This record gives sequence, structure tokens and C-alpha cells, in this order.
Amino acid sequence: MSSPRRNARGSTAARVSPRRRPSQERSRAMVERILDAGRQVLAEYGYEGASTSRIATTAGISPGSLYQYFPHKDAIVSAVLERYSDTLVSSVTTRMSGHFEQPAPVIVRATLAALLEGLDVEPPLLRAAVEHGPRLDDGRALRAFEQRIGELVRAYLTTQRGGLRPDAPLDTAVWMLVRTVEHLTVRYLLDRPLIPREQFLEELTRLALNYLRPAP
Amino acid sequence: MSSPRRNARGSTAARVSPRRRPSQERSRAMVERILDAGRQVLAEYGYEGASTSRIATTAGISPGSLYQYFPHKDAIVSAVLERYSDTLVSSVTTRMSGHFEQPAPVIVRATLAALLEGLDVEPPLLRAAVEHGPRLDDGRALRAFEQRIGELVRAYLTTQRGGLRPDAPLDTAVWMLVRTVEHLTVRYLLDRPLIPREQFLEELTRLALNYLRPAP
Repeated sequence: MSSPRRNARGSTAARVSPRRRPSQERSRAMVERILDAGRQVLAEYGYEGASTSRIATTAGISPGSLYQYFPHKDAIVSAVLERYSDTLVSSVTTRMSGHFEQPAPVIVRATLAALLEGLDVEPPLLRAAVEHGPRLDDGRALRAFEQRIGELVRAYLTTQRGGLRPDAPLDTAVWMLVRTVEHLTVRYLLDRPLIPREQFLEELTRLALNYLRPAP
Repeated sequence: MSSPRRNARGSTAARVSPRRRPSQERSRAMVERILDAGRQVLAEYGYEGASTSRIATTAGISPGSLYQYFPHKDAIVSAVLERYSDTLVSSVTTRMSGHFEQPAPVIVRATLAALLEGLDVEPPLLRAAVEHGPRLDDGRALRAFEQRIGELVRAYLTTQRGGLRPDAPLDTAVWMLVRTVEHLTVRYLLDRPLIPREQFLEELTRLALNYLRPAP
């Protein structure tokens, strides 16, 4: 299910011994603290305003301490966005898993609503993810996100196979659906078109459901 | 139908007198020559490799002459991308206009094929448009493109109104369709998933058509 996770500190994690020493626990706690501060600063000031000194101040540590864990701002931003993506995948997974027996319009709409809510918490964070994420990691985090959501969608569609149009190529359909929903949701939240939220959710649900409906 | 076009040389155009003087014709020809070279260099070397000196060499002029018309590389890239967008809108418009009476699956598929072909000519140019376009002009060219394609789709759907599900909110449907088709086409061409081209076109056509099909 999950693709290999990149680590915020590059190859360091690979050398961590399975037995925890107090210094490792302190390191982990410090990384968490810096990432929490990084997320907070990104959400408040956006990418441009997220300086390492501001992040260090918010974390209540010195810039020197920060640089012991992250070489530069983009390393923090990249790690914050990776955690953001993990949280989103978790919330969507939680919403779908174990509810596959619900009627399709119910589970699809609830899942799309969970995605929309998850993405809508901090618009500057979403903007940073869209505008800088691909540059920072060459699109790896986005591809991992799409891969994990895609596996979930594939599992769901497999249980629904009997109700779908029989000629639908499943892998292609998953590829199309994941990117369509992701892109429209992001554009809706960032561009703020004059479309009521409930109507957007309703139409997105229709778009996704009708695509695989059997021909009349 | 058309939104106001930005001019490659900023406010200069506003000061151009309606009566052509020979020097103005020479200027126009020079701008065209630089933009042709800019497109060629972008298509061959991508954004990173498109330097003003390379563009000047390709245009057969001195860097000094180039700077008389464009202050920096990004001004050329921006103007090249604007012309690229205009060409795309023209090819899609030509494909749809005057063929509204064809069966929906025929005209929709042919239009999507025209878009896919138009975008597939020079992948580095497409990549530059996607990765740098929004930054260069704050998304104006993209919004203008979507606006013009959206008006065309709206006109088409209006003629098809009787065959669509009656509860569909037309403006919202146009907003969703334009962005879905644009994004999936771009992702297909840049990410090169293992989906045969004909199957991609077939599924994209289904996605677009089924969305507004009346409920069974």
C-alpha cells in the first residue's frame, strides 16, 4: 500500500539503530518541533515569508540549533509538505476504509468532502505545496500521494466491478479519477470560483460516478 | 468572446498610432523574429536552456538588438507562451466551430484529439508553460485560455441542452470540464503514463460525455 517514505533528514534515518538512545529521542523531538513550527509559519506567511529565522523563533530554538537538523529552508518546507500529504492520505483512507458497503453516491461524496476539508485547512500551505512542492522534490511527494490514493480507489472500484461499465480499463480509470479530483479540488480552493461549495461537491461526485456508469 | 490580450511589449502597443510608419513595421517584424527564435529555443532547450544570447543567435541578431524589444528572458518566454496559447485556442475553435451538429461522441472526441495534438508538438514548450507560465504572468495567460475555451464549450453545451441532465448547472459544468480536460491532457503528455493514446482519448471522451448524461 504505502510507497517508501523519504526521510526529512535524508540518509540519516537509515543509520539510526533500532535501539533508542536518549539522544536519538531528543533528535526526533527536535525535528518534530521544527516541523510543527515550519507548518505554522508556512500557513501564516506562505512560502516567501517562511524564513529559517522565523521558523527557529516560532520553534523557540536558535537558528544554529535548527541548522543542525535542516540544511536550509527548502529542506524544512519539503518535510512539512510530506507530513501534510501523509495526513491527507490518512484522512481520506479513514473515510473510505470499512465503508465500502455504503451506496456509491454516499461513500464517494463523503470521501470527496473529506479531501476538500483536509485541503482547506490552511490555504497558504496548499499554495506552497502546489507551487513549490514539485520543484523541491521533483514531484516525488505528489506521485507518492497519487499512488496511495490510487490504490485506495482501485480497491474500492474492484468491489464495485459489477456496477461499472464492463469495458472500463481499471488502471486507466483510476489514473484519470485521482488526477481529476485532485486538480479540481485544488483549483476550487485556490481560485475560489463563484461556485457554492455544496454544488461543487455535488458536481464533483457526479463527474466521478457517471464516468464509470454502465451505458444506458 | 476574446478576453483582452496582453501585449508582448507591455504598454507600448497602446501608444502605437493606427497609421503604420515603416519603422513600426520593422519593429513588428523584429518582434515576430525574436518570438519565433524564442519558441524554437524553448522547444529545443527548455526553460533553463533558453538564454537571451541563444535566442539572439537563433534570431540572427545581436543581444543589443534583442534588448531593444525585450528587457529580459522572461519577457520573451511570456510572449512566446501567449502566442502558443492563442494557437491552441484557434485549433480547438476551428475543430468545433461549424460542427455542432455532429453526434456528440464524434465532435467531443475530435476536439479532444485536436487539443492533444496541439499540446504534443513540443513537450519542452508545454513543460515551460506549465512550470513557469503561472509565475511569469501570475496565471493571466492560463485564465485567458480557460476563459476562451470555456466560452466555446458553453456555446456547444447550450446547443445540446435537451440531451443533458436537466439539473446540471451550466457554468459550473463548464468550469469543471475545461479544467479536467486541460489537466488530464497535460499530465498525460508530461508524465507519459502507460496508457495507450487511443485509450486515453476514449476514456477522456467518456469522462466528459458521461458527466452530463441524463440519469438512467
